[in-house]
Amino acid sequence: MLVYEGKAKRVFSTDDEQVYRIEYKDEVTAGNGAKKDVMAGKGRLNNLITSRFFELLMDAGYPSHFIERLSDTEQLVRKVDITPLEVVVRNIAAGSITKRLGFTKGESFRQPLVEFYYKKDELNDPLVTDDHVKLLGIADDVEIAELKRQALAINDHLIALMNRMNLDLVDFKIEFGKDKDGHILLADEISPDTCRIWDKETKENFDKDVYREETGSLIDTYIHFYNKMEAL
Amino acid sequence: MLVYEGKAKRVFSTDDEQVYRIEYKDEVTAGNGAKKDVMAGKGRLNNLITSRFFELLMDAGYPSHFIERLSDTEQLVRKVDITPLEVVVRNIAAGSITKRLGFTKGESFRQPLVEFYYKKDELNDPLVTDDHVKLLGIADDVEIAELKRQALAINDHLIALMNRMNLDLVDFKIEFGKDKDGHILLADEISPDTCRIWDKETKENFDKDVYREETGSLIDTYIHFYNKMEAL
Ligand SMILES: Nc1ncnc2c1ncn2[C@@H]1O[C@H](COP(=O)(O)OP(=O)(O)OP(=O)(O)O)[C@@H](O)[C@H]1O
Ligand SMILES: Nc1ncnc2c1ncn2[C@@H]1O[C@H](COP(=O)(O)OP(=O)(O)OP(=O)(O)O)[C@@H](O)[C@H]1O
Ligand SMILES: [Mg+2]
Ligand SMILES: [Mg+2]
Repeated sequence: MLVYEGKAKRVFSTDDEQVYRIEYKDEVTAGNGAKKDVMAGKGRLNNLITSRFFELLMDAGYPSHFIERLSDTEQLVRKVDITPLEVVVRNIAAGSITKRLGFTKGESFRQPLVEFYYKKDELNDPLVTDDHVKLLGIADDVEIAELKRQALAINDHLIALMNRMNLDLVDFKIEFGKDKDGHILLADEISPDTCRIWDKETKENFDKDVYREETGSLIDTYIHFYNKMEAL
Repeated sequence: MLVYEGKAKRVFSTDDEQVYRIEYKDEVTAGNGAKKDVMAGKGRLNNLITSRFFELLMDAGYPSHFIERLSDTEQLVRKVDITPLEVVVRNIAAGSITKRLGFTKGESFRQPLVEFYYKKDELNDPLVTDDHVKLLGIADDVEIAELKRQALAINDHLIALMNRMNLDLVDFKIEFGKDKDGHILLADEISPDTCRIWDKETKENFDKDVYREETGSLIDTYIHFYNKMEAL
């Protein structure tokens, strides 16, 4: 049964109360849905890439909601109660932070920056401080510390993987949720839709910015990225 | 010599290297200068009110940049190196936080909320997290804790004063700076320009919102507020 249909994925319940099936769609959106297209093969690529990342993280000892890939466009995941935060980790300045705070695109941060955005479409996912997160009742101090700890650990591991592909991980967005035992678990996806990735030498984009900025073919870029993952 | 001319005040150097003279102007602005008027008597009221607040804080043991009031529109202050943050304390939801995060206007927060906005006109004073403050090199962990501690202590004291005037302190903006010894000192002003103040019973505004929302005469409102300060 369809539980939720988002912009990029459909979430279905399964016979197992604790398990969801996620189907990746061929839709591409940017700017919170302002720009929108259908691209054959996109769902497959995102499903293959995100499944591979979750497997690699699991191998390295980082648990996530991921159980297994079912088909080209589907995966099984543990059902979680999503924490309504988009957790963004930034290693290099790009995108909104250059506009909001005046950082120069391409500038490396002294240390990775973790930001929380309140997942609320009507409010356009505003940036929130730790105190806002607490006042909104989203997470307490201990949970906030755990979200940041996990986000930074995932960042370390993803950077190491990207290094092996000769790529720089500029920034990425992840979501977390609580499983039935109340444990905070990495959920949703990790793909070129949710990461900003640059070639170490040419600075070429391997992410959705090619679509946002109309600088190349999204499908060709994602295929190229998936092929590079062979190195892992 | 004129050191700086802002929207509401002029800052002059004096014979004493460590002392500035601040002259309050009759200009009123809102929305970062989008709305702008000149109102005879406004500079005097802001100077009288802010001088009185700084005196009352000083009496209660809270130091600030304030030295003495010189005339109806002028005061002497200690020169500080302004920390480029607008420090906002909120007790009740109103203004931007209702629009940004969906809090209901008038809703009391479980505990006072401290927010930092990066003082940078070109960027429109964006909200920043503690990590942004550190990355921007504005303050370190110890200084951030000190800014919050002082902001909350000032809030407690201002709430007590407003209670005696039968008013609720909804929120306010303060600025801090470092004196020549590196001590963090409350600076700038505390007035109906920088506070949101409601009558406890009628919820009537005693602040610049009467100008922002065009619901009354700013000068009459500030005179009324200053008269209420007699109670202190
Ligand atoms: N393990 C999980 N259990 C429950 N929900 C999940 C899990 N993993 C991801 N989700 C949620 O499933 C939805 C996936 O859909 P999609 O990514 O298309 O949404 P979206 O369009 O990005 O919108 P939004 O994320 O704002 O809901 C998201 O709402 C995501 O938070
Ligand atoms: N003790 C002090 N020493 C040095 N500067 C001060 C002191 N107190 C206040 N200031 C600064 O003096 C200026 C006062 O001018 P005013 O309040 O009119 O500025 P403004 O138009 O609000 O613009 P902005 O605050 O963005 O500069 C502010 O820039 C304030 O930060
Ligand atoms: Mg999503
Ligand atoms: Mg000012």
